[in-house]
Amino acid sequence: MKKYITSDALMAMEKQERVHFINSLGGFKSVSLVGTSDKSGNTNLGIFSSFFHIGAQPPLIGMIFRPSPPERDTLRNIIDTGFYTVNHINENIYKQAHQTSARYDASISEFDATTLTKEYKNNFLAPFVAESNIQLGVEFKEKIDISINNTLMVIGEIVQIYIPENCFYEDGFIDLEKANTITCSGLDSYHKTIQLDRLSYAKPDKELISIK
Amino acid sequence: MKKYITSDALMAMEKQERVHFINSLGGFKSVSLVGTSDKSGNTNLGIFSSFFHIGAQPPLIGMIFRPSPPERDTLRNIIDTGFYTVNHINENIYKQAHQTSARYDASISEFDATTLTKEYKNNFLAPFVAESNIQLGVEFKEKIDISINNTLMVIGEIVQIYIPENCFYEDGFIDLEKANTITCSGLDSYHKTIQLDRLSYAKPDKELISIK
Repeated sequence: MKKYITSDALMAMEKQERVHFINSLGGFKSVSLVGTSDKSGNTNLGIFSSFFHIGAQPPLIGMIFRPSPPERDTLRNIIDTGFYTVNHINENIYKQAHQTSARYDASISEFDATTLTKEYKNNFLAPFVAESNIQLGVEFKEKIDISINNTLMVIGEIVQIYIPENCFYEDGFIDLEKANTITCSGLDSYHKTIQLDRLSYAKPDKELISIK
Repeated sequence: MKKYITSDALMAMEKQERVHFINSLGGFKSVSLVGTSDKSGNTNLGIFSSFFHIGAQPPLIGMIFRPSPPERDTLRNIIDTGFYTVNHINENIYKQAHQTSARYDASISEFDATTLTKEYKNNFLAPFVAESNIQLGVEFKEKIDISINNTLMVIGEIVQIYIPENCFYEDGFIDLEKANTITCSGLDSYHKTIQLDRLSYAKPDKELISIK
């Protein structure tokens, strides 16, 4: 039996409960660690779960920033230096990944605090997370103000990609499960996945077939 | 061993391969069915995997539209009528959900073509999907042009919520697994999930504990 929750019932919730509730409603989320450094090379690492695909040509990825303190370091570094890394989270590092959301002093690198390993390669300015199996080097392109609630969308172009050899299919599909990439829900829940199927391209009056 | 894919290598890929590849890179996605109707009451149902949380007060959900035909009916209905539904997909309906991506004539409702059931309730203008366990009634608030690649972000406010009684925790967390909500990756892969853990609120110098 479903429960009907009206706008009024939602507004009557205690604030933190409502935040968690609304955050859960959108479904499972793409969650990754964003690595940056400031102009002096001091590094920062933060967990984000608001990534979305914008387009393939050019290859663009979007994310949402809210004005709260822990996200401010990441945003400032992205704008100041123009580069950031997006590192998928796997079962071995999700606790350390979650820990990066603690409000450390700006002088402390979350890499050091969580013992995740900085990795620099191919002249990319921002640090990757060595323990991550799928790593993206992203160049900042644009920020768009979302005035309705004072948040910000950041759009970046994917310019470097690192993925395990055995996860890459000929048709372009990437097997995220083989890379041990996980997903999250709400503010604090982490999940691994089990593939149900891959389905053929849908056409009217044509039966779908499994292409797994 | 990781493979390094440069921007040049990406651009050398065959177009459809690159589309699938970039779409996979962002990680697991929130996937739902969007139900709408036009001003005459003709219904439309489409699968989308670009949802993201924007904020809790007001409760806002975002999604990306690209200018291709199957998405155009949904977008036009949202703008014309001001309302749409977002219906989580579960293991029982993911094949029908995928089938809604076929390019049906505008005169054909994907509800009829896939035998998913229209559900109208509490005076909400747009149709819900009866087979979906978590259903959101959303009011259109704003569209923002993403000029960099000619896409569009649509922002809506969640005004009606339906969730199974037993999925709702006191702290606001919603157990999406209990609701059988699934996730997707790339263009055609569907996945159920297994919860690894829920983790306590992170603080510097404090050990995380399981709150599952």
